[in-house]
Amino acid sequence: MTSLGDKGSVQTQTKVLSQDSWTQVSCPCCVSKQVEPLVLIQLSDSVQPVTKRWLISLIETSKRHGGAALLAHPGEDECGDVVVVSAPRCTFLKATEDLGLCKKYHNEDMVAFSYHDRDNFSNVDDMQEFLTLAERQYIVKNELDSLQAQKKQRIPGIPEAPGVLEAWENICQKLVRAGVIKDIFPLHDQQRLNDLGRRWYSKKQIWGQPLDAIQSYFGSTVAFYFSFLDFYTWALVPPAFLGLVLTFLLPGGGGVVKEQAGEGAMEEDDDGPSVSGHMVQAVFSMLWSTLFIELWKRRSSSLSHRWGTLNLAERFAGPRPGFHGTLGLNPETGRLEPLFPEWQRQLRVGLVSLPLVGLLMGLVVLGMTCFYHGEALVQGFHQDSGSLFSGVLLYMPSMAHIVYTNMLGNVYHAVAMQLTEWENHREESSFQNHHTTKVLLFTFFNNFAVLFHIAFYKQDLPLLRKRLASMLIGNQLVNQCTEVVVPFIVDRFLSAPHKKEQEDDLEMDKLRAQRSLPPYPGLFAEYIELLLQFGYLSLFSCVYPLTAVLLLLNNITEIRGDAYKICKLFRKPFSAPVSNMGVWQTAFEVLGFVSVMSNCWLLLLSPRVQEFCLEGGISGKNIILVAILVEHVLILVKMVLAFMIPDEPDWVRIKREQIEFNSMQALGQQVRMI
Amino acid sequence: MTSLGDKGSVQTQTKVLSQDSWTQVSCPCCVSKQVEPLVLIQLSDSVQPVTKRWLISLIETSKRHGGAALLAHPGEDECGDVVVVSAPRCTFLKATEDLGLCKKYHNEDMVAFSYHDRDNFSNVDDMQEFLTLAERQYIVKNELDSLQAQKKQRIPGIPEAPGVLEAWENICQKLVRAGVIKDIFPLHDQQRLNDLGRRWYSKKQIWGQPLDAIQSYFGSTVAFYFSFLDFYTWALVPPAFLGLVLTFLLPGGGGVVKEQAGEGAMEEDDDGPSVSGHMVQAVFSMLWSTLFIELWKRRSSSLSHRWGTLNLAERFAGPRPGFHGTLGLNPETGRLEPLFPEWQRQLRVGLVSLPLVGLLMGLVVLGMTCFYHGEALVQGFHQDSGSLFSGVLLYMPSMAHIVYTNMLGNVYHAVAMQLTEWENHREESSFQNHHTTKVLLFTFFNNFAVLFHIAFYKQDLPLLRKRLASMLIGNQLVNQCTEVVVPFIVDRFLSAPHKKEQEDDLEMDKLRAQRSLPPYPGLFAEYIELLLQFGYLSLFSCVYPLTAVLLLLNNITEIRGDAYKICKLFRKPFSAPVSNMGVWQTAFEVLGFVSVMSNCWLLLLSPRVQEFCLEGGISGKNIILVAILVEHVLILVKMVLAFMIPDEPDWVRIKREQIEFNSMQALGQQVRMI
Repeated sequence: MTSLGDKGSVQTQTKVLSQDSWTQVSCPCCVSKQVEPLVLIQLSDSVQPVTKRWLISLIETSKRHGGAALLAHPGEDECGDVVVVSAPRCTFLKATEDLGLCKKYHNEDMVAFSYHDRDNFSNVDDMQEFLTLAERQYIVKNELDSLQAQKKQRIPGIPEAPGVLEAWENICQKLVRAGVIKDIFPLHDQQRLNDLGRRWYSKKQIWGQPLDAIQSYFGSTVAFYFSFLDFYTWALVPPAFLGLVLTFLLPGGGGVVKEQAGEGAMEEDDDGPSVSGHMVQAVFSMLWSTLFIELWKRRSSSLSHRWGTLNLAERFAGPRPGFHGTLGLNPETGRLEPLFPEWQRQLRVGLVSLPLVGLLMGLVVLGMTCFYHGEALVQGFHQDSGSLFSGVLLYMPSMAHIVYTNMLGNVYHAVAMQLTEWENHREESSFQNHHTTKVLLFTFFNNFAVLFHIAFYKQDLPLLRKRLASMLIGNQLVNQCTEVVVPFIVDRFLSAPHKKEQEDDLEMDKLRAQRSLPPYPGLFAEYIELLLQFGYLSLFSCVYPLTAVLLLLNNITEIRGDAYKICKLFRKPFSAPVSNMGVWQTAFEVLGFVSVMSNCWLLLLSPRVQEFCLEGGISGKNIILVAILVEHVLILVKMVLAFMIPDEPDWVRIKREQIEFNSMQALGQQVRMI
Repeated sequence: MTSLGDKGSVQTQTKVLSQDSWTQVSCPCCVSKQVEPLVLIQLSDSVQPVTKRWLISLIETSKRHGGAALLAHPGEDECGDVVVVSAPRCTFLKATEDLGLCKKYHNEDMVAFSYHDRDNFSNVDDMQEFLTLAERQYIVKNELDSLQAQKKQRIPGIPEAPGVLEAWENICQKLVRAGVIKDIFPLHDQQRLNDLGRRWYSKKQIWGQPLDAIQSYFGSTVAFYFSFLDFYTWALVPPAFLGLVLTFLLPGGGGVVKEQAGEGAMEEDDDGPSVSGHMVQAVFSMLWSTLFIELWKRRSSSLSHRWGTLNLAERFAGPRPGFHGTLGLNPETGRLEPLFPEWQRQLRVGLVSLPLVGLLMGLVVLGMTCFYHGEALVQGFHQDSGSLFSGVLLYMPSMAHIVYTNMLGNVYHAVAMQLTEWENHREESSFQNHHTTKVLLFTFFNNFAVLFHIAFYKQDLPLLRKRLASMLIGNQLVNQCTEVVVPFIVDRFLSAPHKKEQEDDLEMDKLRAQRSLPPYPGLFAEYIELLLQFGYLSLFSCVYPLTAVLLLLNNITEIRGDAYKICKLFRKPFSAPVSNMGVWQTAFEVLGFVSVMSNCWLLLLSPRVQEFCLEGGISGKNIILVAILVEHVLILVKMVLAFMIPDEPDWVRIKREQIEFNSMQALGQQVRMI
C-alpha cells in the first residue's frame, strides 16, 4: 500500500464506510481488507427492507446461481435507501476478458486479457492498478444490467401486479419500472477528482490535457471527446493563420467585410475576398479537412491501442438490456439468449426509419418554405396598408416558424428514440450510433438550412457572409456564457453551502450527496457543437476567412469549460470502453465531402468569378460545367488522399496483426470441441 | 480404391510412370503405393546431370534442411530434361494450414484446417479427396517457389558467374535466370478434363455451369471468373427485357434508330428514345448496376465459403518470390524474412506510380486531341485543294494515331509491370491488384475515350448512338471469331495429328507434350471484355436500349467459348486460392458510380429534354443545375442502397463470426509464449 492515487483515496473513504458490512467473500483470491465503493444504487424511500435484502442477496449471489457476483454494502444510516456496490477480484478479471480489454503483459505489450493466463499480466493482483476507475465502475454496472430472472418469480415486498418477474426478464429494468430503484450512478472519488481538475483546467495548465488521467477517471468515451477537441483545436491553427493572411495581408481581402458587418453598411456588397483568395481558401479547406480527418483516425487508433480498447469483444458479449427477441442459441457463441435476425433489423432501418426520417426532414423544408412565403406575403400586405395591425402581422411568420420548429424538434427526438428502440439493436454501440445519426441529421439540417437556403437558392453571397459572421459570433457568445460563465457563478456563489462539507460528515451522506448534482447530459451536445463549427468552417469559410480564428479562440476556452463542467457540475457518468468516436467520425468525414460541393458552388457564385466570365465572354452554362468538372475532380483527389493515408499508424497495424496471427495460431493448436 | 474421378485417372497414368523412381519417403503416414504426377519442371536440353541431381535432391530434402519436402521423379526417357514433382501427405497438410484453407470438419462445418487437429477433418487420409487438384498443384508450386539458398553456395554443373547463389536468394528464380529451368507448369489430368468438358460446354449443357468441378480442377481464380460470367449473364435478362420493351413497344422508341443505323440514314437524327423511355432506362440502369454488384458480393462470399477460401492467411505466409528487403524478424509472425516498410510502399505508389500513370493517361488524351486537330486540318486542306496528295493525306492522322496508341500501349504495359515490381508488394494478391488496376485504367481509358469525347465534348447523341451500336456489334463479332470459331477450327482440323495420341505412347511423352500448348494468357483479357461490356451498358445504354440484348446473346456463347479455350487450347494454369475477384469487383463498382454521372449527362443532352426546356422557357443554366442535383441525389441513393444490402448473406456472416469467436476463445485458453 505504498503507491499514491487510487489507494490513498480509498483509505480516506474507508475510514468511515465500515468494511465489515460488505459482502463476505469465500474465494481466497478475492478477500481484501478494504473494499472500494464504486456504484451507488439509490432506492425509493418507500422500499421494504425485505425487497432491499432480496436485491442485496441477488447482487451477492454467484453467477452460476443467477446473481451478479458483486459485493454489496447496505449503507449505514437510518434511511436505508441506498445500496453501495463493488466487485471482487474474480468478477473483475472475468469481466475484463469478456469485454475484450487489452492489458499490459509482463513484456509491456498490450495483449487481450485472458483469465486463464492472468498471472502473466502486470498488476493483476491489485485491481486498482489493473483496471481504471471508469472500467471498474462500468464492469459493476454491466454486471448489474445483465441480471436476469432465472424463472418466473415474485419480487418480495412489492404488490402483485408490478412485482412478477417473467423468466429471462431483465431485473434492473424491472425494478426501475416498479419504482424500487430510482437511480444507479458511479461514485466520484473526490481526492482523485481534485488532482485531475488541478492538472486539467487550472490556470497553470494551458497547453495540452492529461488525456490518460481523463481516460482513467472518466473512461474512454469521455477521453476520446477531449482528445478530439484537443486535436481539432491544434488543427485549427493553419486555417486560422491562412484566414489572417487572406484578411489582412492580401489586397482586396475580407478586412473590409468585417467592418461592413460591424457597421451594417450595404454599399460595397461584392467586395469580398478576391478570386485568388477565394480559390486558395476553397482548395486549402478541401485538403485541410481531408488531412485533418485522416490524421485524426491515426491518432484515434493509437489512443485506442494505448487504452487497451483495440479489440473489444462487444459482439460476443451479451445483448444490451433493451434488446428482445425469441430465445435461442446464439449461433456464434453458443449461449442461450434472445435472438433477432439481422435482415429484419436492416429492413426496419431501410423501409421504416429511413423514410420516416426523410419525411420529418421534408417537414423542416416545408416549414421553411411556408415561412419565406408567409413573410413575403405579410411584407407585401404591410407595404400596401401600413396599418398597426399589419405591423404586428409582420412578426407572425417568424413566430409561427419558431413554434413549428420547436414542436417538430420535440416530435423528432421522441420519434428517433422510439425508432431506434424498435430497430432492436443487439449492441449498445450500434444503438448509440443509429440514434446519434438520426438526431444528428435533424440538428444539422435545422442549423444549416438557413445558410444553404441563402447560398444555393437566394445565391446572395454578401448576406451569407453577414449571416455566417453573426451566427459564429452569436453562437459562441451564447455557448461560452451557458457553458462557462453561468456554471462558474452557480458553483462559486450560489452552491457555496453545499461545497462546505464538514470533515466529520458521515461518508454515507457524502456519497448520497452526489445525487444532488444533475446527471451528466452526455456528449451529444458537445460533439454537435464541434460538428456545427466544422461545418461553418469547411462549408462556408471561403466567404468569411476569419471563421477559423474565431473558432480557435472559442475552442481554447471550450476545453477548460467542458472540463470544469464534467468535473464539478454533474454526477459522474458511466462510460463504456470504446475504440473510437463512432458515428461522429463518419459525420465529420461526410461533412468533408459536402464541403467540396459547397466550396465549388460558392466559388462559382463569387462576384469576381462572375465578372471574370463576363469579361472573358464565357457563357454561364460553360462556367457551370467547368465547376462540375472541378468538383468531381476534387472529390476524386479527396478519395485518393483518404485512401493513401493509412487509417492506423504502422506500429498499431503490426500490433493488431500480431494479435490476429496469435489467435490463428492458438486456434490451430487447439483440438476443437465443436 | 472404389471412388471414381481423381483416383481412376491416377491409376491410368501410373500404368506408365514407374512408381519406383519417385522419392522414397520415410514418414509412415506419407508412404503410398501410387504417387500422382502434379507439376512438371522442364529443364533446358543442355542441363548437366549433376545439376539435375542437385535440383532433385533439393526438392526431396526436408524443410528443416532447406529443401521443399516434395517428391521428385526424374522422368524416364532418354532426354532426361524433365523433373516431375508431387508432394507427400505431410507437406500437403502443413501447407493447407499455412494457406489458411477451410476444410470440412467431421461435423460437416467448414473450418480452418489445423495440422494439430487433422484427425477431426473429413477425408484427411486421402489427399485426392481432401484437396482439389488445383490446390495440390498450387501447393507444389508454392513450395518450389519458396526454396531459398540457406547460405552462399555454388550450383553444381553451371559455370562460375551465373552459378553462385547468395544467401536467402530464391532458387527457382535463379535457375530460370540461369537458363536451367525453362518452364514449370501443372499437368492436365486428361480423363478428368474430358469429364469436365462434357459437363461444361457440350451441346446438352445449356443452362448453368459445373462451378464446383471447375473450382476443383482449375482452382478458385478461374472458378470465380466463370461464376461471375454466369451471374452477369443472368443479370442481363432484366435490362435486355426492358430494352426490348422500350425499343419495340413504346411509341417513339428506338426501333427507328436501329433501322437508321443499318441504312446509314441521317435525316431523323433526334428521333431517339422518348424522354420517358430515356429516363426509365437511366434510372433503371442506376438501380440495376447497384443491385447487380451488391448481390454479386453476396454470391461471391457464399462461393468463397463453399470453396473454403473465406479466411486465407496470405498475410501470414511467406512473401512472394519477387519481394525483397532487408532481412529481419517479421514483427507479426516472428519469422526471419525480408522486410520492407509499408509507408515506403505507399509513398512509392502515391508519389511515383500515381503521377506516372496520370502522365501516360494524359498522353492518351494528348494523342486524341492531336488526332482530332490533325483530321480537321487535313480535311480543310483536302476541301481546298482536292488533289490526290491531299486525298492520301486524309488517312495520315488516323494512321499516325493508331501507331501512336499502339506504341503508347506497349510503353504503358512495360511501365506498369516495372512500377508494380518496384512497389515491392509482399503478397501476390496485392501485386496482382496493383498491376491489374494500372493496366485496367489504361485499357478502359483507351476504349472509352472516343465515346466520352463524343458524349461530353461533341455532345452529339445520334453519333454516340451509332458509334455505340457499331462498337458493340463489331467488337462482339471480332471477339466471337477470335475466341470461338478460330480456336475451334484450329483444334478440330489443323492440330488433328497432335490429338491422335497412340494408346501406347509413353506416359512421359504425353506429359511433355502438354508443353506444346501455349501457356494460358490469364483472365485479364476475359475480365476486361466483361468490364467494357458493362461500361457500354451502364454508361451509355440509355441512348441505345438494345445493348443488353446484344450482350446477353454474346455472353451465352462467350461462356462456352471461354470454357473450351481453357480446357482444350492452352496449358493448365496455376491458380492461387482466392476469396473473391479482387480488384475487378471494385472496378465494376466504380463503373456503377461513373454511370450515374454519365446517365444524368446524357439525359440532359437528349433532344426531348432540350425541346421540353425550350417549350417551358427554362434556361439552360437552370436545367444543368437540376441535373447536378439529380446526379448528387442518385449517387446518395446508390450509396444508401449499397450500404443497406449486406455484403455477405447472414449465414456466411455467422460462420465467419463463429471462427472469430473460436479463435478469440482459443487465444484466451492458451498461456502465451511471447
